[in-house]
Amino acid sequence: MAKEKKLVESITSMDEDFAQWYTDVVKKAELMDYSSIKGCMIFKPAGYAIWENIQQELDRRFKETGVQNVYMPMFISEGLLNKEKEHVEGFAPEVAWVTHGGLNSLQERLCVRPTSETLFCDFYKNDIHSYRDLPKVYNQWCSVVRWEKETRPFLRSREFLWQEGHTAHATEEEAQERTEQMLHVYERFCEDVLAIPVICGQKTEKEKFAGAKATYTIEALMHDGKALQSGTSHNFGDGFAKAFGIQYTDKNNELQYVHQTSWGLSTRLIGAIIMVHGDNSGLVLPPKIAPVQAMVIPIQQQKEGVLEKAQELLSTLKGRFRAQIDLSEKSPGWKFAEQEMRGIPVRIELGPKDIEKGQCVLVRRDTREKYPVSFEELCERLEELLSQIQKDMFERAKSFRDSHMSDAYDYAQFKDAVENKPGFIRGMWCGEKACEEKIKEETTATSRCMPFAQEQISDVCVCCGKPAKKLVYWGKAY
Amino acid sequence: MAKEKKLVESITSMDEDFAQWYTDVVKKAELMDYSSIKGCMIFKPAGYAIWENIQQELDRRFKETGVQNVYMPMFISEGLLNKEKEHVEGFAPEVAWVTHGGLNSLQERLCVRPTSETLFCDFYKNDIHSYRDLPKVYNQWCSVVRWEKETRPFLRSREFLWQEGHTAHATEEEAQERTEQMLHVYERFCEDVLAIPVICGQKTEKEKFAGAKATYTIEALMHDGKALQSGTSHNFGDGFAKAFGIQYTDKNNELQYVHQTSWGLSTRLIGAIIMVHGDNSGLVLPPKIAPVQAMVIPIQQQKEGVLEKAQELLSTLKGRFRAQIDLSEKSPGWKFAEQEMRGIPVRIELGPKDIEKGQCVLVRRDTREKYPVSFEELCERLEELLSQIQKDMFERAKSFRDSHMSDAYDYAQFKDAVENKPGFIRGMWCGEKACEEKIKEETTATSRCMPFAQEQISDVCVCCGKPAKKLVYWGKAY
Repeated sequence: MAKEKKLVESITSMDEDFAQWYTDVVKKAELMDYSSIKGCMIFKPAGYAIWENIQQELDRRFKETGVQNVYMPMFISEGLLNKEKEHVEGFAPEVAWVTHGGLNSLQERLCVRPTSETLFCDFYKNDIHSYRDLPKVYNQWCSVVRWEKETRPFLRSREFLWQEGHTAHATEEEAQERTEQMLHVYERFCEDVLAIPVICGQKTEKEKFAGAKATYTIEALMHDGKALQSGTSHNFGDGFAKAFGIQYTDKNNELQYVHQTSWGLSTRLIGAIIMVHGDNSGLVLPPKIAPVQAMVIPIQQQKEGVLEKAQELLSTLKGRFRAQIDLSEKSPGWKFAEQEMRGIPVRIELGPKDIEKGQCVLVRRDTREKYPVSFEELCERLEELLSQIQKDMFERAKSFRDSHMSDAYDYAQFKDAVENKPGFIRGMWCGEKACEEKIKEETTATSRCMPFAQEQISDVCVCCGKPAKKLVYWGKAY
Repeated sequence: MAKEKKLVESITSMDEDFAQWYTDVVKKAELMDYSSIKGCMIFKPAGYAIWENIQQELDRRFKETGVQNVYMPMFISEGLLNKEKEHVEGFAPEVAWVTHGGLNSLQERLCVRPTSETLFCDFYKNDIHSYRDLPKVYNQWCSVVRWEKETRPFLRSREFLWQEGHTAHATEEEAQERTEQMLHVYERFCEDVLAIPVICGQKTEKEKFAGAKATYTIEALMHDGKALQSGTSHNFGDGFAKAFGIQYTDKNNELQYVHQTSWGLSTRLIGAIIMVHGDNSGLVLPPKIAPVQAMVIPIQQQKEGVLEKAQELLSTLKGRFRAQIDLSEKSPGWKFAEQEMRGIPVRIELGPKDIEKGQCVLVRRDTREKYPVSFEELCERLEELLSQIQKDMFERAKSFRDSHMSDAYDYAQFKDAVENKPGFIRGMWCGEKACEEKIKEETTATSRCMPFAQEQISDVCVCCGKPAKKLVYWGKAY
């Protein structure tokens, strides 16, 4: 068992050093690798397969709400980027600039898109004429580039994969409706598919997207008590439309500006899956998103009939489940450790003794519970088990989140919570940026969101003691 | 009918000006638009949906052969690009260079990938150690950038979408097998799904990929008699492995270089679909790739019961077909013209008289034949019809291709064929680059490929008259 131990020992324990544990899991589960281009990552098959499943499921949900996919160029001219003032101030310091095409220098330099509001606006300006052309509900799957100084696998890298939806509407109300609708698509997706509970709410003025009238967010809690912004949806009002001149003639033949939204979710979510569900044996994947849901592992595979029966089990599973078999010459213990490291929700153990009894043994990755199951019942029981794991993983994550949530009524309590109670801190806020800045500077916690589910837990701001306007979820964040 | 005529009249006739016809179809069928970034295109929903269907079907076929998807960074450092001499000479003149990240200039400039051989090599160098790590059969779906001077929608643009497969193998034989295997995946995909017949063969030394030992291609014939290279597969031997130092220890514990391949197919294929199948009414899409396979068009929709019945038909189709209904207030004739422009394979007409007879009328886009069909038989008949259209489109394209193929035995015949017989020209070749160059300079035709199906149609080179070595397909090309 020396080798198996080595595989597991080579991960740092979560409690000892959470950041190192995270990096270890990313590497050992073979999700990602560093490239020789500083700050840019390589998505290896196991990591990319998770993204493919996210794409497939989210894209289906988008299309149910009338979204159409398009693809915009990856370059934005400097002039185009400069059109909306707040937006360019937010992004210009962190874009990559192309200055030469082939052997010639360009007349105007181009940045690699950090996000594509300006490109969609430039397109909508020419494509929208009448109220009949509205709404436009477009989305693209692509990569974007932001020249970050500090990078971490999945969480922050100079290039990352995402989807960005960009819509144009005739009225303010319709834009607001779409902004919230897409946030709720994200919420449902995270909770139902990734088993990650999220807090939905609005960002404060300080934390909103560059150029937006209002930004909404889903915030998840990682196992180390830090929050991760996991998806955002922005209402731009008619700000971009005015900057770019996107107008349509309404039914009364009058010119009107369109109202716009955008919403995005990225490969950062893979980081959330790791940090919400993972444990000291590695990754734990929710069955609905796992590229491999069940791994058949033969035991004493050199004995007659074992491999044949294992292959037979695999065939019964195929088509109904994402199943694989480990036929390598490694020891069963080594295979178990690998399957656990990779976060495969269920392993199916099958040895000569099991075959005698007409059974195999299902082992849950999340709890390690074992269930002997007769061959006849395998499919039915596996389906039940996967659905039970999915449910339990969500409930466990929710209990963790709820038990890492504290209320603070004054600044002393607040500071104590930041230091001693990892997780979200609920505290009232006066609405002043100064308080947010003071809190950030003195505690490193930031306002995560003003939840849709507002409560008045106190009458005064947790920072300055002046009359409170909003309940805010605060926390340290990635 | 004035409006309908206008929509159709606004396309230039193919025979009058093929290039303009092509551009008209691209615009009128709303596949693509120009962006304000010179040479970069916008994929609109109707164009991107075709690409999504290509991706889905091709990706499925890739995975059946053991391909795994990954994602590499979009940037290549200048040092990395320079590692393989022939490769850099082929690509350096046409790459876009990033020189600044945020406000700082970069120490080493980065190009935006024109293709990713160097990135995969850099990765494989660290990831491959033993024969147990082989083969690696990776692919990525992404966009690439080549700073072209002349651009045309889908056929040639500064940024385009594609897939690029990159594999590493223990032996030369295995690499050659994979190179040919993927070419045949492309062949089967083009013929079975896109209804485009292709010639499979090897490129000459002059036409092969920068850095490859051998390049294989599928070549399709467009309606104007020009060839379009529609997919390529390269065997690199161990050239890149030696340049990058990609070695593994074999079973005898000896160090060996890996053998590599790459293969790619791009959004250029959408151009092929347009130019092989389109007609003077617009796009004609093969049913297997059409984003909408059948459009229900109600006639006299203001009459009682028409819309209800049309909606009912749509519901019976949903789930089994990609079907839509046109509920707009346009006239039926206008709707027909739009459906034809968009290339939707079948329209289903339904008016009050049809309802009385318990029928609707299926109209084929490709031949315009009409088939009254009872409501009960609709699904069954539509399925038959779509499969018949798919088959007929392939046969028609194949007849066209075969009737645009001439044999030339000497240079006079060859020149006559280039001028007067649009299509492929079959002619023997001595194997000398000088003859290829002379032919290209004097006739603008190029060697498209040395087909796998070799014949000895003459003993002498069609250009110089010296002893012939290979049968070559020649032609003008995009």
